[in-house]
Amino acid sequence: MCRLLAYSGIEVNLHTLIFTPEHSIVKQSFKPKEMRSGVINGDGFGLGWYNPQIEDTPAVFKSPMPIWSDLNLPSIARKIMTPRAFVHVRGASIGMAIAATNSHPFAKEKYLFMHNGVTENFRTAFMRVMRRELLDEYYAGIEGTTDSEHIFALFLSNMKRNNAKSSDMETCLLDTITQMHTLAQKFNSNVVLNLGVTDGETVIVTNYSTFPVAASLYCAENTVAFPQAALVCSERMFQDPAWEPVPPNHYARIKSGAQLEVKPIGTI
Amino acid sequence: MCRLLAYSGIEVNLHTLIFTPEHSIVKQSFKPKEMRSGVINGDGFGLGWYNPQIEDTPAVFKSPMPIWSDLNLPSIARKIMTPRAFVHVRGASIGMAIAATNSHPFAKEKYLFMHNGVTENFRTAFMRVMRRELLDEYYAGIEGTTDSEHIFALFLSNMKRNNAKSSDMETCLLDTITQMHTLAQKFNSNVVLNLGVTDGETVIVTNYSTFPVAASLYCAENTVAFPQAALVCSERMFQDPAWEPVPPNHYARIKSGAQLEVKPIGTI
Amino acid sequence: MCRLLAYSGIEVNLHTLIFTPEHSIVKQSFKPKEMRSGVINGDGFGLGWYNPQIEDTPAVFKSPMPIWSDLNLPSIARKIMTPRAFVHVRGASIGMAIAATNSHPFAKEKYLFMHNGVTENFRTAFMRVMRRELLDEYYAGIEGTTDSEHIFALFLSNMKRNNAKSSDMETCLLDTITQMHTLAQKFNSNVVLNLGVTDGETVIVTNYSTFPVAASLYCAENTVAFPQAALVCSERMFQDPAWEPVPPNHYARIKSGAQLEVKPIGTI
Amino acid sequence: MCRLLAYSGIEVNLHTLIFTPEHSIVKQSFKPKEMRSGVINGDGFGLGWYNPQIEDTPAVFKSPMPIWSDLNLPSIARKIMTPRAFVHVRGASIGMAIAATNSHPFAKEKYLFMHNGVTENFRTAFMRVMRRELLDEYYAGIEGTTDSEHIFALFLSNMKRNNAKSSDMETCLLDTITQMHTLAQKFNSNVVLNLGVTDGETVIVTNYSTFPVAASLYCAENTVAFPQAALVCSERMFQDPAWEPVPPNHYARIKSGAQLEVKPIGTI
Repeated sequence: MCRLLAYSGIEVNLHTLIFTPEHSIVKQSFKPKEMRSGVINGDGFGLGWYNPQIEDTPAVFKSPMPIWSDLNLPSIARKIMTPRAFVHVRGASIGMAIAATNSHPFAKEKYLFMHNGVTENFRTAFMRVMRRELLDEYYAGIEGTTDSEHIFALFLSNMKRNNAKSSDMETCLLDTITQMHTLAQKFNSNVVLNLGVTDGETVIVTNYSTFPVAASLYCAENTVAFPQAALVCSERMFQDPAWEPVPPNHYARIKSGAQLEVKPIGTI
Repeated sequence: MCRLLAYSGIEVNLHTLIFTPEHSIVKQSFKPKEMRSGVINGDGFGLGWYNPQIEDTPAVFKSPMPIWSDLNLPSIARKIMTPRAFVHVRGASIGMAIAATNSHPFAKEKYLFMHNGVTENFRTAFMRVMRRELLDEYYAGIEGTTDSEHIFALFLSNMKRNNAKSSDMETCLLDTITQMHTLAQKFNSNVVLNLGVTDGETVIVTNYSTFPVAASLYCAENTVAFPQAALVCSERMFQDPAWEPVPPNHYARIKSGAQLEVKPIGTI
Repeated sequence: MCRLLAYSGIEVNLHTLIFTPEHSIVKQSFKPKEMRSGVINGDGFGLGWYNPQIEDTPAVFKSPMPIWSDLNLPSIARKIMTPRAFVHVRGASIGMAIAATNSHPFAKEKYLFMHNGVTENFRTAFMRVMRRELLDEYYAGIEGTTDSEHIFALFLSNMKRNNAKSSDMETCLLDTITQMHTLAQKFNSNVVLNLGVTDGETVIVTNYSTFPVAASLYCAENTVAFPQAALVCSERMFQDPAWEPVPPNHYARIKSGAQLEVKPIGTI
Repeated sequence: MCRLLAYSGIEVNLHTLIFTPEHSIVKQSFKPKEMRSGVINGDGFGLGWYNPQIEDTPAVFKSPMPIWSDLNLPSIARKIMTPRAFVHVRGASIGMAIAATNSHPFAKEKYLFMHNGVTENFRTAFMRVMRRELLDEYYAGIEGTTDSEHIFALFLSNMKRNNAKSSDMETCLLDTITQMHTLAQKFNSNVVLNLGVTDGETVIVTNYSTFPVAASLYCAENTVAFPQAALVCSERMFQDPAWEPVPPNHYARIKSGAQLEVKPIGTI
C-alpha cells in the first residue's frame, strides 16, 4: 500500500503542500494512520506538477529513497508554484523492486498517473494478459515492473483507441477499472485500485476495491489551509470540517481548478 | 535513535543473522518495539564483518537507503560466513544528513564502531571541542557529520595516545564515555551512548545514558538459533530464555569468540 | 557499448581482479581504449561471483553508479575469494534508463549472464516479439528494460524447453544468437552480441556482430598476474603475451576451471 | 578537476542552458576538451538557481551520480525559468569521497558557491588550520569533506566579520584567495581556485592558480544562443565570437543582470 495526494486550485507552493500540514504526506510516509496492510511507505516517492506558462506536459521528480530523507526535495519544492500536483509515497508490495522507475507518479504526454493499491498475482497472472491489450507506443514505454505502470498504459491505450479527448478521461479510467475487475475475476485475485489521473486540468481519483474493506480516501474543497483549492488524499492532512471520505466504489473529480465532486463508479 | 546488532562466535552466515530471526534487525528497522524516541530506523544502514583468513581489517558495506530496500544485501549476505559482525540501522536525529558516510559502522585500522544514541547540541557545542582532542590522523579521517564518528575518533585517539593494545579497548572506551559525560555536564546536554566496538576479536557494547531512562540493550549467549555464539542487540531478536538485558550503566563484553560477560561501567 | 570481464580458475581475490591490473575493468570504465561507439562506461556496474562452499547460485552486486565511485566495492571485494566471477561496466545505449536493474550481470538459478553490445530498435521492434518466445517463469522474472536481460531470458527458455543440462549451454547460447540474427534480418537492424554466460563451472563468452566491424574481445590463460586461471575481457587488462583476440564470429570457452579454448560460432 | 557554468541575464529555461549547447556542461562532463588533470567529470553534479518572485535564497539540486544519468534533471529543468544559475560537474580529486554533500554548488543564506580546482594536501595540512578561522555558524554548517566547502565557509566568515554587504563580495572573495595563497606557501602546496560566488544578483568567477598553467575559463556576453545574458564557463559551450578567455589571475564579474567585466585579481 501507499499514500497519495492530489492538489488542484490556485497556485500553491510545493513545499507548503508537502511539508507543512500536521499530517502531511511526509508524515503519512513514516507514521500513517489508516493503512490496511503494510506499516510504512518508505519505498520511494515521487511528485509531478504543471507549469502551464511553459508547456502542458508535467515535470516529474522521483526517487527510490524515502521522502523524508531526500536532500533536494525541501530546497527545490520551496521555489516551485503550481496549480496542479500529484505526490506519492510508496509502500512496495512484497517482491516488487524498489527503484525510481517504480516510483509514482508516472507521466506520459500531458498525463500524470498514480496508484495506491495492489493487484494480487500481477506478475504471474495479469501482466502478460494486460500487455496484450496495450498499443505499441505504450507497451514500449513501460520502464518499471509495477502493476500501476501497466494500468496506466492500459488507460492510455483506451484513450488512444477511442480517439479520446481529455473530457473522456473519466470514461476511459472507469473502463480500465472494469478491465481490471474482469481479470481479477478470471484470475480469482483481488485488486485495490485507488487511481489518480490528471491531464493538467481535470483531476480524478478513484476508490475501488474487490476486498470487503476498501482503502482510505478523503477529499476537501476550499479549506482554511488551502483556500480556492481542492485536495484528495489517502488520509486527512489536517483538521478541517471540509474533509469528507470518498466512499468505496466512488471517485472524486476536480474540475475547473478547484470544483470538487464525488460520484459513484457505478456497476462494473 | 537507531538499532544495532553485534555477533561473535562460530562462523555464521550473514543472511541468516540479518534476515531470518523473527524480530530481526531488518524488522527492527521498520517495526521496532522499544524505541525511546523516533518511530523507525530507515535512514541508512551498514554492516561490517571480518574474514580472518584474508586479513585482520574489516569489510564494510554502508548505504543511505533503508535496509529493507537494498537489492544487493540479501544476495551478497548469503555468500558470506564470518565469526564477527556488526549490523546497524539508522534513525537519524533531526537535522543530521542522511548519507552513506553517516551510516554505521565506522571502520579504521582493524576496528569497527557503531552507536545507538544521541549527543544533544552536538554540532553547535560538542563538535568543535571534541575535535581539539583528536590526533591529526583521526581528525583528517572523519568523512561524515555524526556525533558517532567523532566519538569513534576520540576513542581511537585515546588508544593511540596510550599506546593501547586491543586488550585496553575497554579502558579507552570507558575513558571516552567519561570525556563525553564531562562535556555533557559542561554544555548542560544529555547523551545516550550505546557504543559498540570490536577489534575483530573482542566485542564491547555499552549501555550509557544521562537521561533517567536509558536505551534498550540485550545480550544472549549460546541460543538455540545461534549456538556457540554471543549476541548483543537493541531488542531481543527472537524468543529464547538466554536473552537478558544489559542494564543502564553496564556493558556487555564478548571474549574468545562467544564468552559473554555483563559488567558495570562504574562511577564516572 | 560496455566492457566485460570473466574470470575462471583458482580462487582469486576480487579486489585484485577488479582494481590492480594496469588497464583494469575500472580503468576500462573511464578510459577505455577500444570502444567502437560511446566514450565511457559510467552508467552502472555489476559483479557476480560464486562461493561453491555455500551454494551453487551466484552472489550479485549491482549499482547504477559508475564503478569508480562506489564506496563499498573496494572494501567488500578485498574480503572475497572466488573461483568464478563476472564483472561488467555499462555504457548505456541512448534512451536506455540507468538503473541497478539494468546493470549486468543478470542472475537466475545458478546462471550468470552479461552482454556487451547493442540491439538496434530493441524496444520498438524486437522486444514484443522476443517476449512471445519466453517461458512464463522467465517472462515474469524480467525486472529491467534492457535487450540484454531479454536475451538472457531467451537463453533460459531455450535451456528449459530442451531440458538442457549445463553441458548444453553452448548449444543453447548459439541458438539464442541464431534467433537474434533472424530477428535482426526481419527488422533490418544490426545486433552486437558479445554475450557471457556461466553456470558457475563452465564460462562461455561470444564475439558476434552483424556490423562489418565487431566489438573487441580478448582471452588469456595462465598469465603471470593470474596463474592457473583464464580471463576473457573486452580489452587486454595488462601486458602479457598470453592475451589473444577472440575473433569475430568466435567464442571463448573455459572448462574445468582454467582450460581455455576459442571456437568458431559457425554458420548462422 | 571539474567544470563549472554561471549564467546571469534574462530568465532562461534551465533545460536549454544545461542540455542544448553543442558543448554543453553535460558534454563537458563526459567529453571535456581542456582538462589539465583527470579525464572526466562523472563524480556528481549540482545546480543552484534563484526564483526572486518567491524569495532571495537559492534552490539547490545535487547528486553523487553523473549529470548524464540523472532521470529527474531533464524533466524538472524544463519547467524552471531563472535569471541566475550555477551548474557544476565534479571530477573528484583522488581520495575525496563521492557524495551529494560533496557536490557543488554550496548554498548558505542567499549565496551560492562553486569551485573548479584543487588544494594539495587539503585534509592533512590545510583543513585544521582553515577551520580555526571559521565563525561558529559556518564551522557547524559544513556537511561534506571538500576543500571547496571550507573555502566557502572562509569566505562567509570574512563577509560576516566585516559586516560585509553584497557589494563587498569581491573584496572578501579576493581576501579568501589571499588566505589560501598564504597557506599554500606555508604548506609548500599548490592551489587552483576557480571560484564562483553569487548573492543572486552579482556573479563573480575567478581564475587563480599557483601552478604555472592555470585552469581554463571563458566568458561571453550577449551571445546569439543566450541574448541579454552573460555566461562564464570552464570551456566554450558553443561557437560564438563573444567568448573570450578569463586570463589567469583575473576574474569575471557580472553585474546588473548581464553586464560582464573581466578584471585583474591583482598582487597577492
